Amino acid sequence: MGIDVGGQSTKIGVVTAEGEIIAQTVISSLQTELIDYINELTKAIKGLIAQTAEAGKVKGIGIGAPNGNYYKGTVEYAPNLKWSYDAEGKPTVVDLAALVKSFTSLPVTVTNDANAAAMGEMAYGVARGMKNFIMITLGTGVGSGIVVNGEVVYGHDGFAGELGHTIAVRDGRQCNCGLKGCLETYCSAMGVRRTAQKLLMASPDVKSPLRDIDMESISAKDVYDAAEKGDEVALDVFRTTGQILGRSLADFVKFSAPEAIVLFGGLAKAKKYFHDDLVAAMEENQLQIWKGRIKVLYSSLKDSDAAILGASALAW
Amino acid sequence: MGIDVGGQSTKIGVVTAEGEIIAQTVISSLQTELIDYINELTKAIKGLIAQTAEAGKVKGIGIGAPNGNYYKGTVEYAPNLKWSYDAEGKPTVVDLAALVKSFTSLPVTVTNDANAAAMGEMAYGVARGMKNFIMITLGTGVGSGIVVNGEVVYGHDGFAGELGHTIAVRDGRQCNCGLKGCLETYCSAMGVRRTAQKLLMASPDVKSPLRDIDMESISAKDVYDAAEKGDEVALDVFRTTGQILGRSLADFVKFSAPEAIVLFGGLAKAKKYFHDDLVAAMEENQLQIWKGRIKVLYSSLKDSDAAILGASALAW
Repeated sequence: MGIDVGGQSTKIGVVTAEGEIIAQTVISSLQTELIDYINELTKAIKGLIAQTAEAGKVKGIGIGAPNGNYYKGTVEYAPNLKWSYDAEGKPTVVDLAALVKSFTSLPVTVTNDANAAAMGEMAYGVARGMKNFIMITLGTGVGSGIVVNGEVVYGHDGFAGELGHTIAVRDGRQCNCGLKGCLETYCSAMGVRRTAQKLLMASPDVKSPLRDIDMESISAKDVYDAAEKGDEVALDVFRTTGQILGRSLADFVKFSAPEAIVLFGGLAKAKKYFHDDLVAAMEENQLQIWKGRIKVLYSSLKDSDAAILGASALAW
Repeated sequence: MGIDVGGQSTKIGVVTAEGEIIAQTVISSLQTELIDYINELTKAIKGLIAQTAEAGKVKGIGIGAPNGNYYKGTVEYAPNLKWSYDAEGKPTVVDLAALVKSFTSLPVTVTNDANAAAMGEMAYGVARGMKNFIMITLGTGVGSGIVVNGEVVYGHDGFAGELGHTIAVRDGRQCNCGLKGCLETYCSAMGVRRTAQKLLMASPDVKSPLRDIDMESISAKDVYDAAEKGDEVALDVFRTTGQILGRSLADFVKFSAPEAIVLFGGLAKAKKYFHDDLVAAMEENQLQIWKGRIKVLYSSLKDSDAAILGASALAW
């Protein structure tokens, strides 16, 4: 089974060795008590196994979760998972693998959601057959999964691949993590909103359908919809996003010399509006040996499928 | 045997399985004709084997060279090796492994010099027992060798680990590679010279023994000597160097979550003048999960020994 733990919902799928999702279900992730979440999760797992008559055939469970630690099977200090908060209202460490194992009697492995997506892409998606690539997930934030020699890089402590918090702009935008100028403050759904706000304020005379929306509640989807209508402000937002992402990607290549960068997540759907600027910025900031040689690919799997498939690959 | 190919000289050593260098010699690297270099090199190899009466016991040769490619056994476009230039006076591709193998009948492996140093440090130095660390070589330029899961990262094409060319300062100093603001334009011997020139010009009223030296010919060694005398300009140069290196290291950690960063090379000898600022900048730019957790170590091996030992480890 592959399980994709998101901030809003948790998706659970039974996956065959060939990578076919033969049954799936969804539960909420919004519980504020850990016991309530684990209760619903384990019941859903058992229900799904019973429903597909695959009991006994399910060999293990792989879970992709924000701040998931592969070595420890934990979810650590995940601000978006309320059930991981302690009595004082702060995110803490949850032994997710141990808990799920206790109530299902199946082997359980945990990794972070971007690593799970990378595994899904490697096993069943555009990175099939690749030994070296970097997965960048462009969602509410920016996550990453790095594959070297066919293996996900976990690092010394299991937390490798926090490329969303490398500094894209020195002394730039304030990030939730406490640092300034992190890539995710520019190249995530949140980042797109902030860039839109900035460009709207910088050009008060330029007309835009985005001005009909309350500034604080503009979403990346609103910017996408405006771009679809040909709005120059929205188009400029995506161009800027592509430029900043492209030059950061150039630096990532200098680390692990991947065959490809694979982009994934909600924001990747706007690729037609940022791809050209991304590639131009990446090439401009690239060393000669890699100019024109690093592919920029987009996930071909449905968002939820990639995460479930990747998590299940982890279980295999 | 381990061979360390440098821009000035090539060091060759016979190394036992225990990591003892039982014989070594040095030849020049300044030949302008490839055949002359290979001739001297292979004669030195054979002479060393004969001299140590280890003929038949030498199992293979590992070579660390600038722009060495592990997969292909080549040295590619190395500006500092004149014998690698083509008839038009441009650096080209030299099949170093194939050539040395042809004339010695021994198996030959090539990697870049920073990777060789990382292997030496892992086998015999401060990184012994570590599975995840990043080696940064602070010499004329800045090189890097990245170790993940006990293996050097080579990437898709064999060129992984060009961290000296990640952008430390956006639109910063012009680098030889064509990009602007590369880490090596600040945190190498060249970078120290440029920072010294800049600070001297920015504060014409501040006295400094460095003013007795022609601006263009100031070396990192001169700055070190001035720092030894307590010169404020020189001390400021090293503080600045440490700050820029520290914040770049913080970003490198976000990639592979290493247990330690190992610093190596001529500039590392000035550690007492930059270490505190380096660590402060690294911590200030670090994510909470890694604050205070990543060791910054300095190579304990002699410069030439680390490279010879590392290259020999590659042969093993």
